Amino acid sequence: MSEAAKTLDGWYCLHDFRAIDWTTWKMISSDERQAAIHEFLSLVDKWNTTQSENKGSHALYTIVGQKADFMMMILRPTMEELNEIENEFNKTKLAEFTVPTYSYVSVVELSNYMAADSDEDPYENPHVKARLYPILPKSSHVCFYPMDKRRQGNDNWYMLPMDERRDLMRSHGMIGRTYAGKVKQIISGSVGFDDFEWGVTLFADDVLQFKKLVYEMRFDEVSARYGEFGAFYVGNLLEEERVAKFLYVN
Amino acid sequence: MSEAAKTLDGWYCLHDFRAIDWTTWKMISSDERQAAIHEFLSLVDKWNTTQSENKGSHALYTIVGQKADFMMMILRPTMEELNEIENEFNKTKLAEFTVPTYSYVSVVELSNYMAADSDEDPYENPHVKARLYPILPKSSHVCFYPMDKRRQGNDNWYMLPMDERRDLMRSHGMIGRTYAGKVKQIISGSVGFDDFEWGVTLFADDVLQFKKLVYEMRFDEVSARYGEFGAFYVGNLLEEERVAKFLYVN
Amino acid sequence: MSEAAKTLDGWYCLHDFRAIDWTTWKMISSDERQAAIHEFLSLVDKWNTTQSENKGSHALYTIVGQKADFMMMILRPTMEELNEIENEFNKTKLAEFTVPTYSYVSVVELSNYMAADSDEDPYENPHVKARLYPILPKSSHVCFYPMDKRRQGNDNWYMLPMDERRDLMRSHGMIGRTYAGKVKQIISGSVGFDDFEWGVTLFADDVLQFKKLVYEMRFDEVSARYGEFGAFYVGNLLEEERVAKFLYVN
Amino acid sequence: MSEAAKTLDGWYCLHDFRAIDWTTWKMISSDERQAAIHEFLSLVDKWNTTQSENKGSHALYTIVGQKADFMMMILRPTMEELNEIENEFNKTKLAEFTVPTYSYVSVVELSNYMAADSDEDPYENPHVKARLYPILPKSSHVCFYPMDKRRQGNDNWYMLPMDERRDLMRSHGMIGRTYAGKVKQIISGSVGFDDFEWGVTLFADDVLQFKKLVYEMRFDEVSARYGEFGAFYVGNLLEEERVAKFLYVN
Amino acid sequence: MSEAAKTLDGWYCLHDFRAIDWTTWKMISSDERQAAIHEFLSLVDKWNTTQSENKGSHALYTIVGQKADFMMMILRPTMEELNEIENEFNKTKLAEFTVPTYSYVSVVELSNYMAADSDEDPYENPHVKARLYPILPKSSHVCFYPMDKRRQGNDNWYMLPMDERRDLMRSHGMIGRTYAGKVKQIISGSVGFDDFEWGVTLFADDVLQFKKLVYEMRFDEVSARYGEFGAFYVGNLLEEERVAKFLYVN
Repeated sequence: MSEAAKTLDGWYCLHDFRAIDWTTWKMISSDERQAAIHEFLSLVDKWNTTQSENKGSHALYTIVGQKADFMMMILRPTMEELNEIENEFNKTKLAEFTVPTYSYVSVVELSNYMAADSDEDPYENPHVKARLYPILPKSSHVCFYPMDKRRQGNDNWYMLPMDERRDLMRSHGMIGRTYAGKVKQIISGSVGFDDFEWGVTLFADDVLQFKKLVYEMRFDEVSARYGEFGAFYVGNLLEEERVAKFLYVN
Repeated sequence: MSEAAKTLDGWYCLHDFRAIDWTTWKMISSDERQAAIHEFLSLVDKWNTTQSENKGSHALYTIVGQKADFMMMILRPTMEELNEIENEFNKTKLAEFTVPTYSYVSVVELSNYMAADSDEDPYENPHVKARLYPILPKSSHVCFYPMDKRRQGNDNWYMLPMDERRDLMRSHGMIGRTYAGKVKQIISGSVGFDDFEWGVTLFADDVLQFKKLVYEMRFDEVSARYGEFGAFYVGNLLEEERVAKFLYVN
Repeated sequence: MSEAAKTLDGWYCLHDFRAIDWTTWKMISSDERQAAIHEFLSLVDKWNTTQSENKGSHALYTIVGQKADFMMMILRPTMEELNEIENEFNKTKLAEFTVPTYSYVSVVELSNYMAADSDEDPYENPHVKARLYPILPKSSHVCFYPMDKRRQGNDNWYMLPMDERRDLMRSHGMIGRTYAGKVKQIISGSVGFDDFEWGVTLFADDVLQFKKLVYEMRFDEVSARYGEFGAFYVGNLLEEERVAKFLYVN
Repeated sequence: MSEAAKTLDGWYCLHDFRAIDWTTWKMISSDERQAAIHEFLSLVDKWNTTQSENKGSHALYTIVGQKADFMMMILRPTMEELNEIENEFNKTKLAEFTVPTYSYVSVVELSNYMAADSDEDPYENPHVKARLYPILPKSSHVCFYPMDKRRQGNDNWYMLPMDERRDLMRSHGMIGRTYAGKVKQIISGSVGFDDFEWGVTLFADDVLQFKKLVYEMRFDEVSARYGEFGAFYVGNLLEEERVAKFLYVN
Repeated sequence: MSEAAKTLDGWYCLHDFRAIDWTTWKMISSDERQAAIHEFLSLVDKWNTTQSENKGSHALYTIVGQKADFMMMILRPTMEELNEIENEFNKTKLAEFTVPTYSYVSVVELSNYMAADSDEDPYENPHVKARLYPILPKSSHVCFYPMDKRRQGNDNWYMLPMDERRDLMRSHGMIGRTYAGKVKQIISGSVGFDDFEWGVTLFADDVLQFKKLVYEMRFDEVSARYGEFGAFYVGNLLEEERVAKFLYVN
């Protein structure tokens, strides 16, 4: 049996993708729509308070293409809180005019392949804490995709010895580092929580950096031989002050 | 031909996942909603009586993410009783406001790889009986996923000799045992009953233990080379006294 | 080119799985529901007459889990009759409250791997006739699944020489024979008719025998290396006198 | 690079499969239904005129099982005409009571593996013309399925040398020829037009011949190692004079 | 690690496929339909202005078969503009009568395998600019499909050395060049943006050239061993002056 890498686990994470049913949304009165938008923004305001207290974080993005119209990404210390937020949103007026199209349940994770042995509790390390309990950036663009490590014939990640996996991950991580300052990357683990093993959320002001980063990594052995990818979602920042315009209809 | 492992079989098991149609649920009057909740809780009460008589067991969990809003897990001595319960639920008022999203039909199973040869009837062994006819725990969290043993090229579980499978399963079981007290695991067999060969239901008070257990096992050869996994569902205990709040809308 | 096994072909067969739309079913009056049930039972009565004249057979089972609420299995001498019965059902009142969830089109088949060379016309052999034109039993339980023989890399059934396939099928059939009296098995061929190559319908009074039989067979090389399985459906006998109760709502 | 076989291409072809929404069909008055049927038959009459002028052909079949209720197969000299016919049907009254379930876009094709080198323009050869611009027969039964040539590991059709493909196709074609007079086969190419590479439409008065032909071919190396098959549809001739009865409801 | 090819990236691209809900479209008055058509054509007019200012381009095609009724292909300098156009369309009256069936998000791309080393900025090269920021042609037909490079066992594109990939791509490109004047090809990259790695959009006046080109390429090693293809869409030019007729119903 191959040795499992240790992981550090932070906030629980829900990605919630929704399409808008524009036809029924147009059917209600302008006043009702205003009330629905106001109710939704009040909810976001509560999330802002939580974030300002460092008890979680969240992000809103519109999604390009038919896969969804917008995405809410929510980070919280417990699975119960994620569930409550999801249910609270589902009970809003706005939710009546949305169609769930995809969701992902995971927990922010740092893999410990590179960990130096030390007596330090990594959860007390401020750099580690900042990554496990991140305040999501207000980058112009987001990219999300779930992924697995392949277990297929000779390309079986989980049968590789720890040393080989560590070396492969180190070279893989190098690519990521060359995008420092251009792409912020949050890895969340979902083994036992959702259908893939990890979710990858990328943030960037230049959307093309997503393509460059993911394409370059595809030539790295970790992705080339061992990566299995789910659907890709790409979107644009939805600032709170843009929500009303986004939902405005004649 | 390779020899099949013997199995011991206990209660039949139905996992029933449902989404709530919040929009239509909000359309009926508060009184109607109260009546629907009351009718549902009466049904659960009947299940409680059955459980107190040791003639079955059940569990209610809310599910995180869009795959479902809640899950009912029902154990009974016969397939007919499962079918009756399912139909009885389907005829309730509450069911009109739910959408079936997934279900799984299986039977609680103990594989007999480790069985010592003895004259004892294993069904009379109290430890075995407790595992075949379990009273489901009130753990804070549940995790469910179906799985197959792989039959693909050189990774064909069913072509392995019995001895090799027994050794692999023993080491696999060891991992599970290190989670004793943290994760309770119920394996149910579904060959001939549903699309995968087994259903795995895990219970824990610390939801992170699901991820740790499943991830660690993935490096074990039984999973790494021979495991094929379906969708993963994760959720939070829905105590009866929380049902009304869970379903409460303005 | 490998030689194709000869097959004997009997009655055409339609498996028709339906979910019930309980919400709309409850919306109509009790009288309308009674009329719909009566109309359906009259249809079944016509099928009974056909069966008593040995011109076909049929079976009704409720299905456990969300895949369907009930299944009609219909055997007839021609594909046209299957189509007429399907259309006749579709035009009934009850059908308005059902949702088609799956169907399978095939023809009862005996493979001729074991056939002794003789001058006898096998279609005149009474044992063969009884199997090609079977009256479906009133067993307590049914199990249905479609399957293919694998054609993948080194596991390609259709590239094996006839002798090897015959030997493999003989050993495969032996397992089935040990379940004689416990499980009745009807194989129907669907090459050119539906998406898999065969449909397997099992009947038993002890539902656990399905699991035992299918699991034991999975270790046989024919299944282990060459079997590809579709969805599994399991259900309980729906006697005509139970139809009204099954469909009864307040 | 392996050499591509030359193909001869005839009429464009649309297979259009539809389910009938019997519930809404029953909701309109008998007069409205008669009008809808009449309008549909007028459309078919236009198609008959086109066919009598040798400017296209068409066929109507009911489909057995839940995949569809009927199928329209339309052949025309241009892709624009297929699109117009499809849109014209979509605008009819009857179309309001149908649900599209599957379609296939292709062009009647003769592969040129066996072509003798000659100066003759094959498109002027009357035998070739009859096959590229066929008048569809009024056979009792139809069978349709799409297919690919496999490109997987060692079973990669497109990496085989031309000579090997030609030999394999010749032996493959031999099987087809033994069904001459029993099964009429129309191959249509769909590379660049639809999701598979070819569509196969078979016509026969004895529906069992579909099963025999497809099963026998499956043992031929072209299918056994290189064939990938989509869904199979089987149906019965729907003569125009039977349309009203087929659509008749109380 | 294998070296990634450099790419040049131009306009962002949205393919948006829609079915028309003819039943509800017929329910509104002729005047309302005229207004909806007029509003849609006004939108297209805005797109024409953008195109005439070289700030983007677009194309409208009807699609043959049930996959969609029409397709809008939109090119713009930013992902935000694509998102705005999509939302603007979604808020129109016409959109209420359409059903989204598929979409694809990508960016026009030139792979740089053949690039001569030079000091020239390729983005300043007029030939390159014309290809990165193309004005879409008014060809009679369109063909769209997404694709991946395979990563499977021994057929793993991303594990090949750069030199081998360059040689393979050169021979692949040769085929394309023999179709110059017959087929215009736009490659758009979607790594990190959508589920496949590239989208391929072909334009031709003779629809058969799509089949010839794609079929011929399939024998080229780049496609034969390394190509994985998604769904194929084929359609006919929808000139603005034909929109009213296309949408006309009695």
